[in-house]
Amino acid sequence: MNNELKKIEDNIVKALEALQKFTATPGCGVTRFPYTKEAREACAYLKERMEEVGLAVRLDNSGAVIGRLEGKSPATIMIGSHFDSVRHGGAYDGIAGVVCAIEVARLLKESGMELGYSLEIIATNDEEGARFNAGLFTGKVLLGQLTSDELKAQVDAYGVSVYQAMAAYGLKPEEIAEHKRDDIKAFIEIHIEQGPVLEAEHKEIGIVDVIVGIKRARIRINGRADHAGTMPMHMRKDALEQATKVISKIGDRARLFRNCVATVGYLQVEPNVMNIIPQSVTFVVDIRGVDEETIMTQYYSLLADLDKMSLESGLTYDVENLLYVEPVLMDEGIKGHFEISCIERQYDYMHLPSGAGHDAQIFGAQLPAAMLFVPSAGGRSHCPEEKSEAKDLAKAVLVAYDTIAAVCEPK
Amino acid sequence: MNNELKKIEDNIVKALEALQKFTATPGCGVTRFPYTKEAREACAYLKERMEEVGLAVRLDNSGAVIGRLEGKSPATIMIGSHFDSVRHGGAYDGIAGVVCAIEVARLLKESGMELGYSLEIIATNDEEGARFNAGLFTGKVLLGQLTSDELKAQVDAYGVSVYQAMAAYGLKPEEIAEHKRDDIKAFIEIHIEQGPVLEAEHKEIGIVDVIVGIKRARIRINGRADHAGTMPMHMRKDALEQATKVISKIGDRARLFRNCVATVGYLQVEPNVMNIIPQSVTFVVDIRGVDEETIMTQYYSLLADLDKMSLESGLTYDVENLLYVEPVLMDEGIKGHFEISCIERQYDYMHLPSGAGHDAQIFGAQLPAAMLFVPSAGGRSHCPEEKSEAKDLAKAVLVAYDTIAAVCEPK
Repeated sequence: MNNELKKIEDNIVKALEALQKFTATPGCGVTRFPYTKEAREACAYLKERMEEVGLAVRLDNSGAVIGRLEGKSPATIMIGSHFDSVRHGGAYDGIAGVVCAIEVARLLKESGMELGYSLEIIATNDEEGARFNAGLFTGKVLLGQLTSDELKAQVDAYGVSVYQAMAAYGLKPEEIAEHKRDDIKAFIEIHIEQGPVLEAEHKEIGIVDVIVGIKRARIRINGRADHAGTMPMHMRKDALEQATKVISKIGDRARLFRNCVATVGYLQVEPNVMNIIPQSVTFVVDIRGVDEETIMTQYYSLLADLDKMSLESGLTYDVENLLYVEPVLMDEGIKGHFEISCIERQYDYMHLPSGAGHDAQIFGAQLPAAMLFVPSAGGRSHCPEEKSEAKDLAKAVLVAYDTIAAVCEPK
Repeated sequence: MNNELKKIEDNIVKALEALQKFTATPGCGVTRFPYTKEAREACAYLKERMEEVGLAVRLDNSGAVIGRLEGKSPATIMIGSHFDSVRHGGAYDGIAGVVCAIEVARLLKESGMELGYSLEIIATNDEEGARFNAGLFTGKVLLGQLTSDELKAQVDAYGVSVYQAMAAYGLKPEEIAEHKRDDIKAFIEIHIEQGPVLEAEHKEIGIVDVIVGIKRARIRINGRADHAGTMPMHMRKDALEQATKVISKIGDRARLFRNCVATVGYLQVEPNVMNIIPQSVTFVVDIRGVDEETIMTQYYSLLADLDKMSLESGLTYDVENLLYVEPVLMDEGIKGHFEISCIERQYDYMHLPSGAGHDAQIFGAQLPAAMLFVPSAGGRSHCPEEKSEAKDLAKAVLVAYDTIAAVCEPK
């Protein structure tokens, strides 16, 4: 068993070392956007690795790499993650899950076991949304959620649409709606945690219970710009003073709920001059939680604070809804297999929510899906310092292997 | 008397209409920076107006225009304000006080009255500091507070030093220290209020009791940037959350003190991305008050809040002192003359502090100085909409006239 683990670790390290070289920013982390030279190189490498372990490999029309092991049934269990990255990201986010999935396939192939369901290893495209501000692309394509018109509407920073970029890359964006798949029966994803919880709790593996829902809104508080010296306190309409009174309550309110977070990451003051009273303050609030009720309770409490502020101070406010994503529960059945494997292999594991979005949330909204998290050193992610241990990744491979072996066992 | 007031009003309107054309931004308010074509044109116009009323006019080495009425004593009473403006400023700030002072001189000249003290009407240079970020220039020169080395150190946005700009304008920066004057016995300034108090209180004239002191500091709160979804509330170091808790108390604390104001006009979040927890927040606090104790009590309370925040949250903070200007009391004797004149002429007046800095604070720190405020429509200032009524300006002229006539009466 130690030899087996060692071989998995070695394969993972070798593949991740090779893959991190496919970046637009050598020396400054991994930048691997969709439909680029780096994307094509990474896909070619992954195709070669998949073929080495004996999979039938194809590049699908969403830009994903898919390696298939045929089972008795054409119905398919899929395991994988994404190959794209954010700008100046790390060498693990997404791609580590792909490399792990290939190891799962290798172990299954080497076991000689007959499969009931067919198995597909997938490296999905454009999960991050770093180029077109959308993301979760392959999942949406495979579930038939995108039309070619939508591909024309989404553009990158240079005005290039997804449609144009796909066509230039050799894909067929006009056929995107035809790539809906009805044969996928379950989706499993191994991913780095991107947070500090597993490390802090000294756990080797995390079983994700839910991918959090997100409510995001842009709020502008409208005051009046006046001279900071000559306008008496009782006559001013200071947008920043009022904004700080509202924002200062957001974090403490989130702390009242289990597994919730709330953040104001963006705030802009106008005119932002030290001797002028702020005319307006615009900020974005991002509230995440494991169920809709706790998310919306916080959001409506924030709106109530804004109403109270407006009534008391005479300032007005505007709200623009930016995003609402529902929380997605992971499948209890697959989670049970994860848990049995962890117990049998004596791995230290815990249950936790995922605070970030993942491919599994797209699949999980429609069919059984589950995720394994691997500890992130220092909780760091989306930066060149991102790091997970090969031994932890290898353990996730074995848990996923046990799970798929159980799920795919011919009935 | 009504005819007299009408003539003063007409002269003021005519002069201000002419002077507002000397701007670098025609159609976008008055922009009259020091040592520019606009400055030279405004000075030439003022010189001509002063000569018309019978003054002996010179351009001094600080870039000011000075018109002199010789009295029995060479000791001088000075009345005036500044001719420069901020960028896209109005047609009243500073220059209205100069035009009023010329009217005072005209009335004195026309009265035929013999003067005890000599009288000088002054249009000071670079009070605003809009070009070199310093300001109050002529006052500092006349009181011997500047050296030629300091003029070399202060540069504008293009890297041009005060020294270079003065030389190019035809002045002698190398002789700046020699222009200290020991003959000035008092300084009187008429200025628009630049705030809403006189208008709100339905007053025609304000007698300034004190020019407020200012404490200004730049504070940076240092947190840690993390993923807004994956970092649990109890493990995050959110610089903006902590900053809002501290900033939200600043205004309410200022409201506890009479005639104090406190403002955070500038605030910058890093990295300022909606799904990243803020790593740092930098803000500038500006506290103004009529005595040092109330200013510093507020400032030290803010530092205590920062200490408490740091102890409780583990975040650190840095403080950079930007400015401390002491409050400057206006002269009781001159204020008494103002008050007697207002009562005799039945003008509605009130006492108030000046929340903005003025030439009178430089003089007032060393010799008797006093200011009259004229109502500003809507409290607006430093903008093209800035406006004061000619009839109010004319009343200030008459109060200043009465005062100087009394002060300059030969003993």
